[in-house]
Amino acid sequence: MTEFVPQLPKQAAVVGCGVIGAAWASRMLLKGVDVAVSDPSPDAESIISQVLANAVVAYDDLGLATDSQGTYTIASSIGEAVAGAELIQESVPERPEIKSAVLAQIEESAASDAIIGSSTSGIKPTTMQQGMAHPERLVVAHPYNPVYLLPIVEIVGGEQTTLGNVRKAQGFYAALGMKPVHVRVEIDAFIGDRLLEAVWREALWLVNDGVATTQEIDDIMTHGFGLRWAQMGLFETYRVAGGLGGFRHFIEQFGPTLDWPWTKLMDTPDFTPELVDKLVEQSDAQSGHHDIRDLERIRDKNVVGFLKVLEANQWAAGTVIAEQR
Amino acid sequence: MTEFVPQLPKQAAVVGCGVIGAAWASRMLLKGVDVAVSDPSPDAESIISQVLANAVVAYDDLGLATDSQGTYTIASSIGEAVAGAELIQESVPERPEIKSAVLAQIEESAASDAIIGSSTSGIKPTTMQQGMAHPERLVVAHPYNPVYLLPIVEIVGGEQTTLGNVRKAQGFYAALGMKPVHVRVEIDAFIGDRLLEAVWREALWLVNDGVATTQEIDDIMTHGFGLRWAQMGLFETYRVAGGLGGFRHFIEQFGPTLDWPWTKLMDTPDFTPELVDKLVEQSDAQSGHHDIRDLERIRDKNVVGFLKVLEANQWAAGTVIAEQR
Repeated sequence: MTEFVPQLPKQAAVVGCGVIGAAWASRMLLKGVDVAVSDPSPDAESIISQVLANAVVAYDDLGLATDSQGTYTIASSIGEAVAGAELIQESVPERPEIKSAVLAQIEESAASDAIIGSSTSGIKPTTMQQGMAHPERLVVAHPYNPVYLLPIVEIVGGEQTTLGNVRKAQGFYAALGMKPVHVRVEIDAFIGDRLLEAVWREALWLVNDGVATTQEIDDIMTHGFGLRWAQMGLFETYRVAGGLGGFRHFIEQFGPTLDWPWTKLMDTPDFTPELVDKLVEQSDAQSGHHDIRDLERIRDKNVVGFLKVLEANQWAAGTVIAEQR
Repeated sequence: MTEFVPQLPKQAAVVGCGVIGAAWASRMLLKGVDVAVSDPSPDAESIISQVLANAVVAYDDLGLATDSQGTYTIASSIGEAVAGAELIQESVPERPEIKSAVLAQIEESAASDAIIGSSTSGIKPTTMQQGMAHPERLVVAHPYNPVYLLPIVEIVGGEQTTLGNVRKAQGFYAALGMKPVHVRVEIDAFIGDRLLEAVWREALWLVNDGVATTQEIDDIMTHGFGLRWAQMGLFETYRVAGGLGGFRHFIEQFGPTLDWPWTKLMDTPDFTPELVDKLVEQSDAQSGHHDIRDLERIRDKNVVGFLKVLEANQWAAGTVIAEQR
């Protein structure tokens, strides 16, 4: 977990400057890194200046210094952008043939040991690194928008990526203020997007079948479990739900309902003793140092804080609190 | 939406006093409602006093008055608890035969026009109201824990429930400081738990297949999309992701990846023109009055607020911010 050393890249390149690329550039700039941007669209400069302006407001509000910003340049070509960069972030459209063509152009001019991080939401790095001259430095570095605020980045290496380069990439992203989680097993869509994809599919069925509107679904998220997941994930939340009986008790209670017809997405793993043990052991390792009652108090304090923020911003669940004044 | 009138119940009963029942009682008490509690366990009084203590801390922190609390009594039977109650909240274990036996006992002593709200996570009200003397007043009122803090409650009527009683129930829960969403189509697991079930299944596969640990999955949620969903749901978030092109643009970009093998949960609706139109119309109705750039600024302000709260509490994504000071 801590085998990498946070280290800012001396210079960075952002290839593909839509919403995600511009937000990457903003994060880098606000950490003092100079960034060369390449995008065929004439809108790139306008997008980056707008996104950067938002990011500066956010960092000021957060109290993170924005006074030693890096500078950005709009390069006239991919080659010009990546020359001299230690970290190259690729955020071009999600089409394998485009990714592949862009990677080839990057490699023509990039230093052979520059790290190339791809923002792809789901294409495997092993696929992308086919045919690369230096495939060992390609990683997926999948962020979540707004990239300049959300700390998570999933780091995935392909078959030809060296572990040293995975660590080096983690060091770059950590120095950029992120939490770089190394996804150790290479699967399509990695971890976060598999979860998002499942929710998205189920939500589409609910709208498709006329059960709920987009507004109702969003309300249930923002006024309900969304407030939980900003501070404890699925497993820690359910550990708390299990009460003093712990995670095993939770599975005993909730597990059987997995066989109930509660979704159209039906493939489920069996709760073998091995899977239950694995879940319990991992949950203990993750949260076992906290007493359940402590976790409840921490949860409440976090949620109370969120509700105050939302009330001050007159937004979502905060409006329900405001009505009670 | 606003056809109900917020109105506190004069007296309430909580039948089944585990974590959920005790949290219901706490919300009612802190809104000044007297509550009679029934539970066969000798631990009921201890559970309710602990959960109430947490709730008082949370309401104090939130700045909601806790000085005109209702009083609670531990009744010696279900009959004693429900006599005279205008609102009866049932939170007994999730087994149809237990629910059915408890509902029969409730009806023996309850006023015939008392509203019975069931906390069930997924059993249909039409199933539960079979054999009831006054089925027209049974609703599902499904909360999310911690019930005293999270405002959402899904209200579902069965075939025999009158719409008048759905409105009456919504009025009670609204007066208790909640947002009562009427789930208009009766399906197993309603809306929120269908989404949760999909995530849970996918997360179990990830652990089962050794792709990720519970800690890694939770980190990706709490440092990533969880921070989004506490303030904008799936659809509003994706609307923003679509940028100036709006929701239709988002679907055009993201839609096709639904056919990619990104999950083991494979049943997906087709993106027919009808479904796309429905999604776009609903998203416009929900968020169309906000400019996308405004939504981005609101989102950032909310997330910044959450990150400050988490940093102050030394928790989750807040620890990543703290490291940057």
